[in-house]
Amino acid sequence: MLEVCLLGTGGMMPLPNRWLTSLMVKYNGSDLLIDCGEGTQIAMKCKGWSPKPIDVICFTHFHGDHIGGLPGMLLSMGNAERREPLTLIGPRGLERIVRSLCVIAADLPFELRFIELTEPFQILYLHGYRIEAFRVHHRVVCYGYNLVIERQGRFQVEQAKMLGLPVQYWNPLQKGREVEYNGVIYKPEQVMGAARKGLKVTYCTDTRPTQSILEHAGHADLMICEGMYGEKEKAVKAKEKKHMTFQEAARIAQAVRPGSMWLTHYSPSLVRPEQYLPEIREIYPYIEAARDGMSTTLRFEDGEEES
Amino acid sequence: MLEVCLLGTGGMMPLPNRWLTSLMVKYNGSDLLIDCGEGTQIAMKCKGWSPKPIDVICFTHFHGDHIGGLPGMLLSMGNAERREPLTLIGPRGLERIVRSLCVIAADLPFELRFIELTEPFQILYLHGYRIEAFRVHHRVVCYGYNLVIERQGRFQVEQAKMLGLPVQYWNPLQKGREVEYNGVIYKPEQVMGAARKGLKVTYCTDTRPTQSILEHAGHADLMICEGMYGEKEKAVKAKEKKHMTFQEAARIAQAVRPGSMWLTHYSPSLVRPEQYLPEIREIYPYIEAARDGMSTTLRFEDGEEES
Repeated sequence: MLEVCLLGTGGMMPLPNRWLTSLMVKYNGSDLLIDCGEGTQIAMKCKGWSPKPIDVICFTHFHGDHIGGLPGMLLSMGNAERREPLTLIGPRGLERIVRSLCVIAADLPFELRFIELTEPFQILYLHGYRIEAFRVHHRVVCYGYNLVIERQGRFQVEQAKMLGLPVQYWNPLQKGREVEYNGVIYKPEQVMGAARKGLKVTYCTDTRPTQSILEHAGHADLMICEGMYGEKEKAVKAKEKKHMTFQEAARIAQAVRPGSMWLTHYSPSLVRPEQYLPEIREIYPYIEAARDGMSTTLRFEDGEEES
Repeated sequence: MLEVCLLGTGGMMPLPNRWLTSLMVKYNGSDLLIDCGEGTQIAMKCKGWSPKPIDVICFTHFHGDHIGGLPGMLLSMGNAERREPLTLIGPRGLERIVRSLCVIAADLPFELRFIELTEPFQILYLHGYRIEAFRVHHRVVCYGYNLVIERQGRFQVEQAKMLGLPVQYWNPLQKGREVEYNGVIYKPEQVMGAARKGLKVTYCTDTRPTQSILEHAGHADLMICEGMYGEKEKAVKAKEKKHMTFQEAARIAQAVRPGSMWLTHYSPSLVRPEQYLPEIREIYPYIEAARDGMSTTLRFEDGEEES
C-alpha cells in the first residue's frame, strides 16, 4: 500500500493555516517528498511524522516556495540521527543551488546524492519507486513527476511444476533472480505471469497545460494538479504567470481520467477554493479542492499487500 | 511608544504551535526584526502584519534556526512591493551567507545593505533606533542587542527667553539644529534640559551567561533572554551546548534588574516552560516564560508620545 499526504496546498508564500504545496508518500518503509518549501518540516510534524525516513526528495523547480525549507529539513534529519544517504532529484543546477542553500546546514551527518534531470522525460528506480520525471512549462525549467509502484505478475505454480523446478527455487525467481538447476538456467519470466496493474500518483504544479502532461499522466490512481486560480476570469493571469486555473486542470482530468484529481498550489488570493468545485465537476466529476494534510491510502486493486 | 512582539519562542527547529525565536519591534513607522528563522514570516502574518515596513533585520548568529527564513521573508517583502533599501546587521560573514541563501531570492526589487559587526561592542543609529550590539558566548560568533529609543531633555522655555531668542528659532533647536540670530550661533544644548530616560529592550539568546551581558543589559525596560532548559539538571548540557538554563537567566536578571524578563528559545524537549516559574521567581520576581506572539507596548515614563 502507498500512503499519500499532501502536506500543504499553498503557492507563492506560506500563510497562517496554509502550508506550501508539498507531497509526502510512504511505501515499504521508505518516504519520498516532492518539494520542500518554508514550513514543510512543520507540516510534516503536524502529521506526527519524523523527517528521518525520507530517502528521496524530488524538486519540481527552484522557486523559493518549493525549496526554501530544505536547509531546515536537512538539519532536522541530522538531529533525528539520519545517517543513510539522501537522494535529491531536480532540474539541472540542483547541486549548485542546494550547496548554496546549505551554507547554513554544513556538516550534515549523512551524504547528499544528486540526480540532475537533463531530458524531457526520465525514469529512475529508487527505494521501490519508479519515478518518472516529465518536463512541463513554467517560467523556469520545471518537472512533473509520476510515482509508480510496479507490480509483477503472479507466480505460475503450474508452470514451475511443469518445468520440474523444486520448491526451494521458486522464491528467488519470484524475487526476480535467475536460478540454476541441474545445469540449466531458469529466468523469472518463465514462471511469472504478466505484470499486474500497480499504483500511480501523478504530481504536477507550476505549469501551463502541456502535451507532456497529457502524454504521461494517463492511468493515474491519483493526480495532484496545479490549480492556482478558481476564477475563470483569471485565465489571462494564469497564462501570463505560467500557472493554471481550475478549469484548465479539469480539462486535463477530462483527457487523462485519473481515479481522482486533487487541486493544489492555490494563490494566496484564493481563500475558498471549494466554491469553484460545482462548475468544474461538470467537466470531470472526480475532482477535489485539496486541503492541507489531505491523505489517502492507495492499495492494489485486489487488496493484496504483496505481489 | 515602542511596540514589542516576540513572534516565536522555539530553538533548534520550528514546531507545530511553536515558531522559532524572533523579535519584532515597531517604532515610529519603522519595523525592526531580530533573527528570521523558518516560519518567522508566517508568525508575523498571524499577527496581521506585513513584512513591508521592516527596515532593519539584526542577526544574532548564523545557525539555521535564526536565518533560514530570510529568503522567504525577502521574497515576501518584494511581493509586498517594498522598494526602499533594507539593512541587515550581523556578525562577520553576513553578506557572504545572505548572498548564498539568496540563490533562490535573486532579483529583489530593493537593495540589501550589510553591516558586519567586527568589534565586541558596537553602536549603530538607524531609523530612530540606537542599536547596541554586544558579543556573547555561543558555539559560533554571536551577538546580543540593545534596542534603545533615546529621549532628549525638555525644551527650557525660560532659558530661551533669557537668551532673547524669538519663538521661531525654538523648534529647530529642539530638533537638534543650530540657529543663527543677530550674528550669534545658538546650540541646542543651550536650551535643552538633560536627556531623559528613554526605552530599552535587551535581547540575547544562544549564549552562556557572560560579563558582556552584565555590562550592557542594565536598565532595560524589557530583557528577552535565552532559556533553553527549565530543568536544573540540564545545567551541564546547557554549558556543553553553550545555552542557558532558566536558573542562569534568572541570576542575570537578579544582577541587571530589568523591568521584566521574558524567557525564550526553548528546547523542543521543553514542553511546559511555565512550570519552572515559581522557583526562578524566587531569584527575580519579574520573569515570564514567554509564549509565541507575546507583546507589550513600552511608553516613556511620563506617558508622553513626543519629547
